[in-house]
Amino acid sequence: MAGNTFGNSFKLTTFGESHGVAIGGVLDGCPAGLELDLEAVQKELDRRRPGQSAIVTQRKEPDKVDFLSGIFEGKTTGTPIGFAIYNTNQKSKDYSHIKDSYRPSHADYVYDQKYGFRDYRGGGRSSARETASRVVAGAIAKQFLKDVRINAFVSQVGALTLDKAYTELDFSLIESNPVRCPDPDTAQRMEEYIKEIRKEGDTIGGIITCVIQNVPIGLGEPVFDKLHAELGKAMLSINAVKGFEYGSGFAGVKMKGSQHNDQFNSDGSTKTNHSGGVQGGISNGMDIYFKVAFKPVATVIQGYETIDKEGNMVKTKGKGRHDPCVVPRAVPIVEAMAALVLADYSLINRTIKL
Amino acid sequence: MAGNTFGNSFKLTTFGESHGVAIGGVLDGCPAGLELDLEAVQKELDRRRPGQSAIVTQRKEPDKVDFLSGIFEGKTTGTPIGFAIYNTNQKSKDYSHIKDSYRPSHADYVYDQKYGFRDYRGGGRSSARETASRVVAGAIAKQFLKDVRINAFVSQVGALTLDKAYTELDFSLIESNPVRCPDPDTAQRMEEYIKEIRKEGDTIGGIITCVIQNVPIGLGEPVFDKLHAELGKAMLSINAVKGFEYGSGFAGVKMKGSQHNDQFNSDGSTKTNHSGGVQGGISNGMDIYFKVAFKPVATVIQGYETIDKEGNMVKTKGKGRHDPCVVPRAVPIVEAMAALVLADYSLINRTIKL
Amino acid sequence: MAGNTFGNSFKLTTFGESHGVAIGGVLDGCPAGLELDLEAVQKELDRRRPGQSAIVTQRKEPDKVDFLSGIFEGKTTGTPIGFAIYNTNQKSKDYSHIKDSYRPSHADYVYDQKYGFRDYRGGGRSSARETASRVVAGAIAKQFLKDVRINAFVSQVGALTLDKAYTELDFSLIESNPVRCPDPDTAQRMEEYIKEIRKEGDTIGGIITCVIQNVPIGLGEPVFDKLHAELGKAMLSINAVKGFEYGSGFAGVKMKGSQHNDQFNSDGSTKTNHSGGVQGGISNGMDIYFKVAFKPVATVIQGYETIDKEGNMVKTKGKGRHDPCVVPRAVPIVEAMAALVLADYSLINRTIKL
Amino acid sequence: MAGNTFGNSFKLTTFGESHGVAIGGVLDGCPAGLELDLEAVQKELDRRRPGQSAIVTQRKEPDKVDFLSGIFEGKTTGTPIGFAIYNTNQKSKDYSHIKDSYRPSHADYVYDQKYGFRDYRGGGRSSARETASRVVAGAIAKQFLKDVRINAFVSQVGALTLDKAYTELDFSLIESNPVRCPDPDTAQRMEEYIKEIRKEGDTIGGIITCVIQNVPIGLGEPVFDKLHAELGKAMLSINAVKGFEYGSGFAGVKMKGSQHNDQFNSDGSTKTNHSGGVQGGISNGMDIYFKVAFKPVATVIQGYETIDKEGNMVKTKGKGRHDPCVVPRAVPIVEAMAALVLADYSLINRTIKL
Repeated sequence: MAGNTFGNSFKLTTFGESHGVAIGGVLDGCPAGLELDLEAVQKELDRRRPGQSAIVTQRKEPDKVDFLSGIFEGKTTGTPIGFAIYNTNQKSKDYSHIKDSYRPSHADYVYDQKYGFRDYRGGGRSSARETASRVVAGAIAKQFLKDVRINAFVSQVGALTLDKAYTELDFSLIESNPVRCPDPDTAQRMEEYIKEIRKEGDTIGGIITCVIQNVPIGLGEPVFDKLHAELGKAMLSINAVKGFEYGSGFAGVKMKGSQHNDQFNSDGSTKTNHSGGVQGGISNGMDIYFKVAFKPVATVIQGYETIDKEGNMVKTKGKGRHDPCVVPRAVPIVEAMAALVLADYSLINRTIKL
Repeated sequence: MAGNTFGNSFKLTTFGESHGVAIGGVLDGCPAGLELDLEAVQKELDRRRPGQSAIVTQRKEPDKVDFLSGIFEGKTTGTPIGFAIYNTNQKSKDYSHIKDSYRPSHADYVYDQKYGFRDYRGGGRSSARETASRVVAGAIAKQFLKDVRINAFVSQVGALTLDKAYTELDFSLIESNPVRCPDPDTAQRMEEYIKEIRKEGDTIGGIITCVIQNVPIGLGEPVFDKLHAELGKAMLSINAVKGFEYGSGFAGVKMKGSQHNDQFNSDGSTKTNHSGGVQGGISNGMDIYFKVAFKPVATVIQGYETIDKEGNMVKTKGKGRHDPCVVPRAVPIVEAMAALVLADYSLINRTIKL
Repeated sequence: MAGNTFGNSFKLTTFGESHGVAIGGVLDGCPAGLELDLEAVQKELDRRRPGQSAIVTQRKEPDKVDFLSGIFEGKTTGTPIGFAIYNTNQKSKDYSHIKDSYRPSHADYVYDQKYGFRDYRGGGRSSARETASRVVAGAIAKQFLKDVRINAFVSQVGALTLDKAYTELDFSLIESNPVRCPDPDTAQRMEEYIKEIRKEGDTIGGIITCVIQNVPIGLGEPVFDKLHAELGKAMLSINAVKGFEYGSGFAGVKMKGSQHNDQFNSDGSTKTNHSGGVQGGISNGMDIYFKVAFKPVATVIQGYETIDKEGNMVKTKGKGRHDPCVVPRAVPIVEAMAALVLADYSLINRTIKL
Repeated sequence: MAGNTFGNSFKLTTFGESHGVAIGGVLDGCPAGLELDLEAVQKELDRRRPGQSAIVTQRKEPDKVDFLSGIFEGKTTGTPIGFAIYNTNQKSKDYSHIKDSYRPSHADYVYDQKYGFRDYRGGGRSSARETASRVVAGAIAKQFLKDVRINAFVSQVGALTLDKAYTELDFSLIESNPVRCPDPDTAQRMEEYIKEIRKEGDTIGGIITCVIQNVPIGLGEPVFDKLHAELGKAMLSINAVKGFEYGSGFAGVKMKGSQHNDQFNSDGSTKTNHSGGVQGGISNGMDIYFKVAFKPVATVIQGYETIDKEGNMVKTKGKGRHDPCVVPRAVPIVEAMAALVLADYSLINRTIKL
């Protein structure tokens, strides 16, 4: 398996299966001398943690991060930061029912085809549990980025949409409700809807919007590694993501150039921001904003038919404690990946001009 | 500038500015012994060429590719394939009007900020002319992929949509009209609309749908380098792209898990394909399909106000011969990038299992 | 700090300081389905362990490896193999004397210059303790390589040389003595000499020869990533190494082409092997052999003068328990790095020909 | 074929076969705004050119470099610098005698084994002609490095050695004789010896010493990517190189730690420099110096026996115009590779500390 490393200069490598000994990672390339607030790192992990509210999975995983290297006297030393999150709640027996059959729209089948066999316990490496390592590294990236502000929030659950421009929202309200939607009324309706869905033994999709402010001009590489292309890849690498758009996105298709073009102010800022803060793959100093579409979680508690390894049809149903809607817990993951992308480009960018 | 290389094993590096001596690239990692149809490569380039129809830019660029290395007696030798497309139509004077001012929603301003100065002739490196090199390499990738079939087509221009599932379409009709839409009636309406837009001196956005068939099971890496994440990055790296979705995409958000899950047939194929041919980041043998959203071209012929290097407001208007709508010419580019992604994963995949 | 990753396809990333919580690594890219003998891995670590004989450092470090991921039911799953070696013997106070001064020919001074400060405990990241992680990964690489036989041994200590061609040696004797020299008489003299050196409170250099047999033809990439170039880099990346030569090496300089050329037998093997098993950067199926020169360990127990952070001259002397000669313990490290190089090229090589 | 790229941030990709249309490369990552002296680049190429003196090959290749991109108004733009050297002297018929047989100690045999077939004309990709592209990029790297001074020279031909420390030499004499040895008497003897060897229809090996002065402190990465490890790889990637040592090198093996350690002066410089300017993989500001061993050129004009593709023994002899001793022309190549390594680390180094 390749592809367990993200970034070129600010570079995260993760390891671990959902029901192995530990998950964790190595963050290589963080400059020396950064004072780290380790409580802030743990706090980001807590935002992603199961069991944090009534509308997420009720699994109990403390998700406590242990740092193994790279930090000395409270500061990064410039050496790789190794860390581990031990799996303390390995109820492997919960998963015996999927040992020999393939859950629909999960990775079970393709893993067996690709690798010849798989660690079937709870999804193994394909479990979204891996994203906890990303949140740890992303929290360090946020501290490295200092003045850059990254705010993600839930803007849609099923057909329920948050119908306000992000500029009308108060980001300080994001954490005020379990859905992580900064509009209290919409949040309330989303929360009730998710509870209904859970009662049905079903799941529902959602959209996360992310806004990045105070970005320096010049991040991003103009050809294959455009800033928005790397952000897109980062988001699409999160479990259950089906789509990504930035700036005007899919709606921009219907616009004419004369409307869509962002006219300049004399200071180089623009009057509109259909570009979403990126022009030619490079940040232009305006707010970066994008949307990430999540499909409904594949594990439904309702019974369903599927196939076993021999291709026989078998009846089964989802067990365990799963999320009825993944977006509330995915908010810190989106922020973490955005932070990793920006930190990586920040390092590359320092070398670009004589 | 980093980021001029795409792929890890089947790896393309491009160079060149729109009005320099030449654009071109080096394709490294193509296995030895592949018989190359060089006319088919040139034919792909011709699909992207300016001046091919009444609804695209009327610039005259022959876009003839010269191979410099890596091919011997009609076959790849395993050594890097170097190639160049000489710029024969360098009307640099056409661009003197943008030397000291910044075109809105172009990369002019950010290039100057990032690099300190820029090759202002026709967009320089930020010009979509760079994508001709991708089409050359992608055409070789297609030949390497043999049985895999990649078909992209225009499915939307402005608000005009192609309202048929891809399974109802006849891909052999894609090249039958200048829009590259496989439904003749829709194509007709799109063509007329683009002509109107051109008369207005304006531009319009569009969507390209891409369908990849006959994909072997097992391509893609499960964590950061998921197959759809890399496809997404590849597409978002194309000039003017604002969004990417695959399978159920943004529409999947509104579905419940019980509806969205793709139930298995006994042979491992699935009854539905909301997953878009990818599960857990790995191809499952079903058709891969995705959509790519293009904004309207930024160069409009209408007059507009913008700023010069000192921040003064100046009046200007687009000169030269530009595309009123980019999607017809972007079809071969989308296919090329898809081919490069699949070729890259095909090579990695050979080493995954003992 | 970049550069904590080795390999492209069979890829090791290490982390950890000598006196931090743990050292360890992530091995990414090992194919799925490899049955692992974990005792054999620990045994390789034991060959590198301090305190194993009277002629190496008497520090007590159990160096027990814990695997955290990537192995299921005794086999690799294809997912990244995370592992940690906890530092149980962190006598940090031993190193307080070097907190504010720089040991000659150590990395103390350059770390402070490069990173602004350093983890001064026992060398931190610059300690050869990091190589324990390489031995773990190398032991897995050896198992992956199956029939390839890698034997390293000590061929010189100070001026004492092993004056036999490797073809005259019995590799099964390498582990029969603490020096790891397969010639018992020479080993005896080397052992006595090292003991003398230790009594003097001094240290001495040495040479390790490595022989790799049963290598398939075709490993290595012909231009920048020649097989011997990557072996050279691998060896030069080991602490205290000052030189690398393969095949005829520096002695080959004095030969004429007519003597040096390896004439073919009719089966493609060669009558001589001045090429050292590599031609044009690619293995030719003959034995690969090379020599690695190690300088004397920098930490001497004798008193010496050095500078502190302010540039004042201070008197100090080496404390702690150090190796009088590094080569006996470096033998498994040389083998590990050779195995990592070959495993990496083995994976790349599968994709080179149609 | 992978491995046609060198460097991570200041990154060269080369292409081309000795008798193809052109050789060339793409240099990606050179910062914007560097004023380039293109005549100085061509001059470096001329130092490597065949036919420059009586003791090198008499082939006539003008080796004129054409720049295709990345330079505008005399300065680098930050975009990739593409360049080509057209092969004007493609006497392919000269090589028909090796089409079906394998020259001893050349890459012919392993290429056929690895790739299934090969471009047999003059060695194809395995020809040292590829190094011309390195000299072009290295010349740009030298200009980027500004104050760093890189001087390579011939210090041994066969058994004839230059018996002076580099500090006693006048580097301005290097170009005063065709051997490129800065000691006129030794140069004279070496020149005569090479002429004798040529008369015999034979070849001879040699050593190049390289001295790098004015290196900033802090270049190099401490673990796998140590500065000397990357220099070693760079040198070992040059055709015909069999060994690399830096600082005390192989001779350091016989020294005791108390002798070998470089004692500090109060300004951080050292009284001796056995370390060769690198400690713990990081430059310490002292001169970097190293030696590179070249085997005798494999192509001898004397008749010899070898095998054809079917393994039959055939009589043949070297044709064409070859170098009797490679080191005089390899001097600029050694310097170019050293410059590329240092330029790459210079860019990485800018991001290492907050």
